[in-house]
Amino acid sequence: MQYTTTIQNLIDAFSSLPGIGARSAERIAFHLLKLPSEEALSLARAIHDLKTRITHCSVCYNLAELSSEGPALCEVCRDARRDRSTICVVEQPKDLLAIDASGTYHGLYHVLLGRVAPLDGTDESDLTIGGLLERLEGGEVREVIFGTNPNLDGDLTLLSMQKTIGERFPGIALTRLARGLAAGTQIEYANRSVLDDAIRGRQSLSTEGR
Amino acid sequence: MQYTTTIQNLIDAFSSLPGIGARSAERIAFHLLKLPSEEALSLARAIHDLKTRITHCSVCYNLAELSSEGPALCEVCRDARRDRSTICVVEQPKDLLAIDASGTYHGLYHVLLGRVAPLDGTDESDLTIGGLLERLEGGEVREVIFGTNPNLDGDLTLLSMQKTIGERFPGIALTRLARGLAAGTQIEYANRSVLDDAIRGRQSLSTEGR
Repeated sequence: MQYTTTIQNLIDAFSSLPGIGARSAERIAFHLLKLPSEEALSLARAIHDLKTRITHCSVCYNLAELSSEGPALCEVCRDARRDRSTICVVEQPKDLLAIDASGTYHGLYHVLLGRVAPLDGTDESDLTIGGLLERLEGGEVREVIFGTNPNLDGDLTLLSMQKTIGERFPGIALTRLARGLAAGTQIEYANRSVLDDAIRGRQSLSTEGR
Repeated sequence: MQYTTTIQNLIDAFSSLPGIGARSAERIAFHLLKLPSEEALSLARAIHDLKTRITHCSVCYNLAELSSEGPALCEVCRDARRDRSTICVVEQPKDLLAIDASGTYHGLYHVLLGRVAPLDGTDESDLTIGGLLERLEGGEVREVIFGTNPNLDGDLTLLSMQKTIGERFPGIALTRLARGLAAGTQIEYANRSVLDDAIRGRQSLSTEGR
């Protein structure tokens, strides 16, 4: 005998998620069968809510809850204590969360929702750069930090934006996140590009250290 | 910043599933955010259907779809080609599926929905043995095969049922699945209880082999 259609549908739906194979999906299906109905259905509801309540922030394109009072604003943009003179540009909402979790940065963000990747056929026009330029028009921003990923596509994105922003807003400082040895790693296992970054970007101790 | 409540709820709901940790749950949440709404909601629907449409077979307690025409019957019990003189007793629907997938067994099943496990405080009264005894009353069954798991609880369940059934239905043959070396394994890695089973249960070649 086979699983009934209802069970097979659920197994198929779970198997299509990242990191869940056929066996895990089966295990989850049997787990859900045993759970009290209310608990299992709360998972269904959570998925439903996700797809109906979450949208992008109308200012920075971070994830935000839909609001009945005007355009959606994310938690960062709503936070009055944020330093509004700095914008950190990231590729995805996930990157924003990682940077913000460090607790070192207190400015605003701008989420590109992608990157310049010639091999995937995406360029600046697929990103939310228009929105960023509008924000810069406001005149309040004094520094844009590029927090794109330290790889080929991230660097291409950075270079392309550096040109666009540099030409239109020469008064705004453009920086990027520091490259070098990742804390907690060992030099003997660092690869060539990491060491290359670490040597070229070596930091002077004379002013900071003493 | 933190995830919004809606996203955090979803991550929590997924983290509570077996085999899914916080990081995987996060990955799934972002995957669902990117999916077309229809696809993501079909997962929610599949969970809902599972909890509202699946029940236990009214005869053997296997999983079955709810039916509008009378009591639910599973695929095995509905199958007219099955040998109705043999019942294989298993602990869970999963065990039934595994045994049936082998294609060697063509009789009926009875799912106990548990096992005799003194440490968990479960005994015969927590199982579906009442239903099995009723089925045996019918007089059609000539053999009961115990397909409980080859471990302490499985053996306890088997012994306890062997007594109950043996006393009431002395005419019915009681057997259990063979114990011994698992096909495809190597004797040098077999543990003591496996070798013990294999030696005690050694099978005569004189009649079968020639």
